[in-house]
Amino acid sequence: MNYPNGIKKQKVQLVNYKNRGMCLEDDINETNRYYCRNDLAYIYKKPTPIQITKVDYPSRKEAIIKEAYFKEPSTTDYNGIYCGYYIDFEAKETKIKTAFPLHNIHPHQIQHIRNVIRHGGICFLIVRFQIQNETYLLWGDDFLSFLENNTRKSIPYSYFKTYAKKIQFTYQPRLDYLKIVDERIGGSYEK
Amino acid sequence: MNYPNGIKKQKVQLVNYKNRGMCLEDDINETNRYYCRNDLAYIYKKPTPIQITKVDYPSRKEAIIKEAYFKEPSTTDYNGIYCGYYIDFEAKETKIKTAFPLHNIHPHQIQHIRNVIRHGGICFLIVRFQIQNETYLLWGDDFLSFLENNTRKSIPYSYFKTYAKKIQFTYQPRLDYLKIVDERIGGSYEK
Repeated sequence: MNYPNGIKKQKVQLVNYKNRGMCLEDDINETNRYYCRNDLAYIYKKPTPIQITKVDYPSRKEAIIKEAYFKEPSTTDYNGIYCGYYIDFEAKETKIKTAFPLHNIHPHQIQHIRNVIRHGGICFLIVRFQIQNETYLLWGDDFLSFLENNTRKSIPYSYFKTYAKKIQFTYQPRLDYLKIVDERIGGSYEK
Repeated sequence: MNYPNGIKKQKVQLVNYKNRGMCLEDDINETNRYYCRNDLAYIYKKPTPIQITKVDYPSRKEAIIKEAYFKEPSTTDYNGIYCGYYIDFEAKETKIKTAFPLHNIHPHQIQHIRNVIRHGGICFLIVRFQIQNETYLLWGDDFLSFLENNTRKSIPYSYFKTYAKKIQFTYQPRLDYLKIVDERIGGSYEK
């Protein structure tokens, strides 16, 4: 069946696209690019820290790394600026339906989240439950409060349902997490 | 000659140390570690961006990068949080006595500096003139104003003498650049 104005077709494409299982990192990078393009916020993923042990210099300009190792990140993955605020977050996805395993977040990253909050930054986790295909923003203080009051090795899905904010998928930007930040800072990039 | 209280000796060591030609990056990293240790600010150097093209996985935990290339950074090298402010800067040193060559700062880094300032961040360059052994903090807006009003391919040393703030070498922290930031934001971490 053909739809002359193409609207229905576009909608089908959108649904397909959403189900293709884009990874969270891609969605966030694309969202951050949207924010940059529209001069709303400048938030970047930090490069993966690498320990370089061997480099070849075939010419002055071209260096080839011949041996290197991944290092454990000491801070969170993303940071930047929005409305004068320092923004800092970590993004993780899990295949587990009922809980988010805490081994995903290293102890020095937890300390970093604590430091950022104490110094007035906006800090949170973005967690995607792949099976439900739901993405949540969990404020840093709610995350720390869970850690302080629980001995569990994972945060139950129900904790996210109760305390975290669900980030809606939209066409552009894909994961508009700053809308949730707006609720907190009382501003809005749309104004 | 021996000094029983050791004070003179310590001073001599300090002078020697200053002349050993520590690189600017080391001085800044050490300063940032001092700020962290004393819970004053959390400012980190971003890892060098690298394009990985070949990885070996001898075991699940240990990956060895076998081929990778350096990528050009699209933002500045350092960012973080201080007194609720987003802090962002680039650090460079030059062996040229009379000027700081502008090819040291890439066009997308200049755009990044513009973006950060427009969105309320604290943005600057730290430039060391190796021959004079002097280190300056040049505010982002003074840097941009130079670019807008000049066609030169370098910023003369005299411009730094006039418009930039000299960062004093001290024992701890080595390069207390936040003291200069304090003058701007009207606060102080010492209070």
